[in-house]
Amino acid sequence: MVDGVEKVRVLRLTEDAIDKVEDVVAREFPLTVILNDRELVTLLCSPTDLKQLAVGFLSSEGLIGAKPEIKKVLVDEVRGVARVETTAETGQAEEVFRRFISSGCGRGASFYSAADATGLGKVESAVKVSVAEVISLMREFQHRSQLYRNTGGVHSAALCDSSSILVFAEDVGRHNAIDKIFGRCLLEGIETEGRIVVTSGRTSSEILLKVARRQIPIIVSKSAPTDLGVKLARDLGITLLGFVRGKRMNVYAHEWRIADGR
Amino acid sequence: MVDGVEKVRVLRLTEDAIDKVEDVVAREFPLTVILNDRELVTLLCSPTDLKQLAVGFLSSEGLIGAKPEIKKVLVDEVRGVARVETTAETGQAEEVFRRFISSGCGRGASFYSAADATGLGKVESAVKVSVAEVISLMREFQHRSQLYRNTGGVHSAALCDSSSILVFAEDVGRHNAIDKIFGRCLLEGIETEGRIVVTSGRTSSEILLKVARRQIPIIVSKSAPTDLGVKLARDLGITLLGFVRGKRMNVYAHEWRIADGR
Repeated sequence: MVDGVEKVRVLRLTEDAIDKVEDVVAREFPLTVILNDRELVTLLCSPTDLKQLAVGFLSSEGLIGAKPEIKKVLVDEVRGVARVETTAETGQAEEVFRRFISSGCGRGASFYSAADATGLGKVESAVKVSVAEVISLMREFQHRSQLYRNTGGVHSAALCDSSSILVFAEDVGRHNAIDKIFGRCLLEGIETEGRIVVTSGRTSSEILLKVARRQIPIIVSKSAPTDLGVKLARDLGITLLGFVRGKRMNVYAHEWRIADGR
Repeated sequence: MVDGVEKVRVLRLTEDAIDKVEDVVAREFPLTVILNDRELVTLLCSPTDLKQLAVGFLSSEGLIGAKPEIKKVLVDEVRGVARVETTAETGQAEEVFRRFISSGCGRGASFYSAADATGLGKVESAVKVSVAEVISLMREFQHRSQLYRNTGGVHSAALCDSSSILVFAEDVGRHNAIDKIFGRCLLEGIETEGRIVVTSGRTSSEILLKVARRQIPIIVSKSAPTDLGVKLARDLGITLLGFVRGKRMNVYAHEWRIADGR
């Protein structure tokens, strides 16, 4: 049994048959993130890699910069609480909290238009990837998505170089899966700059902002982008691939990084 | 061209071919909801049915009860702002804002465990549905999901009776699609009690709480539930169907409402 799944009794029906079976569903776990003694948010997540999730989320929101800023991370898996202590000064934190509560209080990150994102520098990396490498990475990625194959209910995300998966995570939320990989990178000192992110989920504006913040030049998705996702990819210098399925794929932005993209 | 989609230039690649084509992607639009002059949240949504979305969201969060409480709804589609004025007294609203900001500030609704949900009464409706009716509803539902067929990037939700779809909505967010149908119901006086909700998305705890609040006895999904979704469905008296695809389906809770469920 994989972590993050739960057995349930299910009635499996068709028009003429009925079976009582035991099936597995993805677990959904409330994790409250407390930053420097202030309750910030409750994330609904898969109960794996909780430390990585808390740190990755705070880093995505701009509340943690580099690793030395982290003084302590304590996760209470029973109560569903992650306490993070950082070196951030109170004045600065107050401002960040205000921003977070006023505009970040939605279903994701803190910026909502390309204009807001200009604080994030353009991704300049000259890294390239070939069509064959993308096909191979996506094949390995889907092979790793064990939890999805069990439950049909979770998203996966991975940090890769052009030949293999370096960090992999799964979660009921596509945002959380990506925050988990970047949280691990931050905690373990794994370089993100110039690397490739693969995701099972849609590439909306918030996902593009998360990868831009880590200087990721290439994002590869099994699913569709949104128009804001495409616009941000173009503005931020990120190569965006979508509908990567079997041997086909769409390139929505900066195709010059596809080595054989002509 | 359907509302809510945008044309983009795409490079379509395979290992041996390359095509420049025009494709459509789902639009993603930031809508800031202002309740009684206080900025509450910015929703990333498909830019359709914005009035319904704002009202449905506030109702899902318990910030609007019945229609007479709504004094005014003004949507500015250019600036992406929905201003809602209600009769809620200031003291009450303050408490609600506090709750919203402290624990609801995540990626969805305000309750995170079955225990928190006990304020919502159990759904007592004796309504039943047959396997053939579920199959037929899902077939009609998928036929209606025009935007998804165009872009592969949006979710759909519908309010139905046992024979047909009464209200239908699409959105880049599965929460938003459901809020849009309930917002329309509230604004147009369409009864929700005893009706069926069909959704393309996963049935997580937040989705179950949204339908419980409207006394919906049956929820039908093309996708998987989470464990908390199943637990809430059982606790709240809701019949939960998942993986309804072709002529097959799983029943996770209260199968007695399936007329031929034996």
